[in-house]
Amino acid sequence: MGHQMAYQSLTRTFQRLHHFAHLGAIASWDQAAMMPAKGNEARAAAQAELQVLMHQLITAPELAQQLRSAEQENLDEAQRASLREMCREWRQANLLPSELVEAKTLAASRCEHAWRSQRKNNDWQGFLPNFREVLRLAREEAALLAEANGVSRYDALLDKYEPGMRSAEIARIFDDVKSWLPGLIERARAKQAGETVIRPQGPFPVERQRELGLEAMKLLGFDFDGGRLDVSTHPFCGGVPEDVRITTRYRDDDFAQSLMGIVHETGHARYEQGLPRDLLSLPVGRARSMGIHESQSLSFEMQLGCSRGFLQLLAPMLRRHFGDQPAFDADNLAKLFTRVEPGYIRVDADELCYPAHVILRFEIERALIDGEIEAEDVPALWDEKMMAYLGVDTRGNYRDGCLQDIHWTDTFGYFPSYTLGAMYAAQYFATMRRAEPGLDDKIGRGELEPVFGWLRENIWSQGSRWSTDELVRRATGEALTPAHYRAHLEARYLG
Amino acid sequence: MGHQMAYQSLTRTFQRLHHFAHLGAIASWDQAAMMPAKGNEARAAAQAELQVLMHQLITAPELAQQLRSAEQENLDEAQRASLREMCREWRQANLLPSELVEAKTLAASRCEHAWRSQRKNNDWQGFLPNFREVLRLAREEAALLAEANGVSRYDALLDKYEPGMRSAEIARIFDDVKSWLPGLIERARAKQAGETVIRPQGPFPVERQRELGLEAMKLLGFDFDGGRLDVSTHPFCGGVPEDVRITTRYRDDDFAQSLMGIVHETGHARYEQGLPRDLLSLPVGRARSMGIHESQSLSFEMQLGCSRGFLQLLAPMLRRHFGDQPAFDADNLAKLFTRVEPGYIRVDADELCYPAHVILRFEIERALIDGEIEAEDVPALWDEKMMAYLGVDTRGNYRDGCLQDIHWTDTFGYFPSYTLGAMYAAQYFATMRRAEPGLDDKIGRGELEPVFGWLRENIWSQGSRWSTDELVRRATGEALTPAHYRAHLEARYLG
Ligand SMILES: [Zn+2]
Ligand SMILES: [Zn+2]
Repeated sequence: MGHQMAYQSLTRTFQRLHHFAHLGAIASWDQAAMMPAKGNEARAAAQAELQVLMHQLITAPELAQQLRSAEQENLDEAQRASLREMCREWRQANLLPSELVEAKTLAASRCEHAWRSQRKNNDWQGFLPNFREVLRLAREEAALLAEANGVSRYDALLDKYEPGMRSAEIARIFDDVKSWLPGLIERARAKQAGETVIRPQGPFPVERQRELGLEAMKLLGFDFDGGRLDVSTHPFCGGVPEDVRITTRYRDDDFAQSLMGIVHETGHARYEQGLPRDLLSLPVGRARSMGIHESQSLSFEMQLGCSRGFLQLLAPMLRRHFGDQPAFDADNLAKLFTRVEPGYIRVDADELCYPAHVILRFEIERALIDGEIEAEDVPALWDEKMMAYLGVDTRGNYRDGCLQDIHWTDTFGYFPSYTLGAMYAAQYFATMRRAEPGLDDKIGRGELEPVFGWLRENIWSQGSRWSTDELVRRATGEALTPAHYRAHLEARYLG
Repeated sequence: MGHQMAYQSLTRTFQRLHHFAHLGAIASWDQAAMMPAKGNEARAAAQAELQVLMHQLITAPELAQQLRSAEQENLDEAQRASLREMCREWRQANLLPSELVEAKTLAASRCEHAWRSQRKNNDWQGFLPNFREVLRLAREEAALLAEANGVSRYDALLDKYEPGMRSAEIARIFDDVKSWLPGLIERARAKQAGETVIRPQGPFPVERQRELGLEAMKLLGFDFDGGRLDVSTHPFCGGVPEDVRITTRYRDDDFAQSLMGIVHETGHARYEQGLPRDLLSLPVGRARSMGIHESQSLSFEMQLGCSRGFLQLLAPMLRRHFGDQPAFDADNLAKLFTRVEPGYIRVDADELCYPAHVILRFEIERALIDGEIEAEDVPALWDEKMMAYLGVDTRGNYRDGCLQDIHWTDTFGYFPSYTLGAMYAAQYFATMRRAEPGLDDKIGRGELEPVFGWLRENIWSQGSRWSTDELVRRATGEALTPAHYRAHLEARYLG
């Protein structure tokens, strides 16, 4: 231990950061789920003060030397992994000059604020000047990070959400998807054209939807002694691993959106609840990447939640909470939850169309950050790609086109995570089915522990101990491949 | 402004403290009202980290010099008051060596933890060793504070909750009360002996109690855009002035406890919501004292809430939420809410018996801290005073005697605030009635703005600008006197 002085000192600093982050996370959840309107100004000031403090802590001059010293100390393998993740967090916080961080925050806040009305008003021209400034600063950030990390500019931003992932790899995978996805969508739609789907008849009282959601969370193993379900405008999974707060929103004419939203967030939540308890206060104890996080929510929502077996469990639950309806037949639910209908909006997209929305955004944002196109080129590219990938005409419709997402008021490099998550999830379930014969029958009988056990052992309990690539290889025996994703989609939509 | 460098620097430091306190307050509310059990350990660690940080900020060496320098700066009257309150907060945090603070925290936590079962088991002998240690440390703290502030030891602790108040003054006032209270209790009971009181018949469904409580809060002017009502085991008023969180608890066999609890906490809440907005981030913008805070809750609960006029407003609300009952007649409600029955327990005591419980505790804790008695002398004194003031026999019944309150596991000097608050409240309403003829008729017609307006102008908006004595003189034209309190009680219980 005498030979770990720098490492121990770093550990203490990161634990302090963890404690402050706890208070920030609870205050954020409260802001979204509980806080009345007039609390906003004081809350924003308090959160900003906390951010300043945490930034001071992680940019304290002595950390650089401690990180160098710790490299020379006698650390075991787990401590080396922990040090690697500390370094990573430190670099993210220390590479950017504070003036750039401030300028980015200001530009993002201005852009987002105006976007809220510009989107409603279909006002791309109004959005453009703010967007140019956001893009200019994002490129500046990307250039700085790229130089320091020895990667391309887009890859430098991507790395914030998908450590170690490169856009060339993503492009290779997405090009594969593009080669079969439009055809698959077409065939699935042709197959579904002859089907009859019965729509559930509302109203579905909010209190019963909530009870149904809680029952689904229980079935999915959510630990209610270590978390809660509440309501917010934009559903999310927040709080802290020891106390995970998920939210949903209810519409009394539709139960499916809130229910599947809860199933999705429960996947995120179980990842957090299953992270290694003894390492929670350190970066190495946290979720590996946004893509891996999304792979958990999509394992729950898409792989498990929309599976035939799970819908057999759901049918009697729906009848219990809402009374009997022909729509609640498991066969009909399967049709309902796998209906393919290309549309404008990413967040409303079905499982099969979703990756097209993501690939389009990836291609555009990568070209934007790498300087191959300019802000004003976005709408034409958007129209072209929507037509090519989904056969949807978005010309002149900015509201439901390139103005629909909040991301680009602030964030570039995040979109790939959604579809990487879906692919990881398909790869996990292919592995599980190999290891566990009759898995789908077990799911249909409510025996979900084989799924949870596999995810717990292979993903949740691993935190950030391994690189993403290593984590996936250890769990599935191979690197990320779109093959399992394709097989899953073909089986579900053509099978 | 160039001549206010130290003052401005202090202002910035106290604003930072204010922002951190905001996060701590929301996290505390969450802990009591929202947090699931397994969140406790991480929350406690995060809160402790925040306390360490805030203690570091307020004990930073440069503050002492800045406070001295600011005294010499060219400040206006409001800034002088602000500086006075900063000094006060700084002194509270800087006078005690950190080893003593830590020893106190440890002893209190041990004493409180054991007390939870010792109280249940009537185990005074088990409690005594822990209590002796808590007392020893409280005396040590009192001696240090007393020497620094030039006051007696008990007064030094009292000053934390009632700045500027002295125990000699309290003793003078309480001796006056003791001279007439037992006789008044006796006469009130004789008068009530012949009355018939109809008890309300439950159950009172929790959801309807909640709606009734929200309606009462609305009637009492609570700003729901700047606060919430939730549930916790121990009701309190928390959060921050910009976002006040009050709590209650419900029993379905009794609506009165939760309803009057909500009325009480709403009084605390409106004080917080009415504090001067431009000064909230500084000590001078906060509540004046615990006694003044309690004077707001008791203005709402006792002066207003149990008044004939308010009960006339309440009667139709009760009928609307619970259906009609003979018990909901305003005359019967008045009898119900002013029923006098001496008992063991302070928190269950009625308005008339309550001060006896407080005076007894004040006399005992003052003698303990000033070294006139020892820990083992408490039960005999308790028995003697309970018999003398309330005619209640507590011999051998520690559970419902000297072990009933949590305060003495940690806190000495707080009890007087409860009864000082009741007296201030009586004095306010005497002043209001002089200024506003027909006030009680207006209350009965639901015109409560004269009450709120008086409190807003004279108390809420004043924050800590004046000393308590000055605040009360400005508001009522005289220093605190028990005369109005006695007149109020005689009018209500003998009138
Ligand atoms: Zn998600
Ligand atoms: Zn109170």
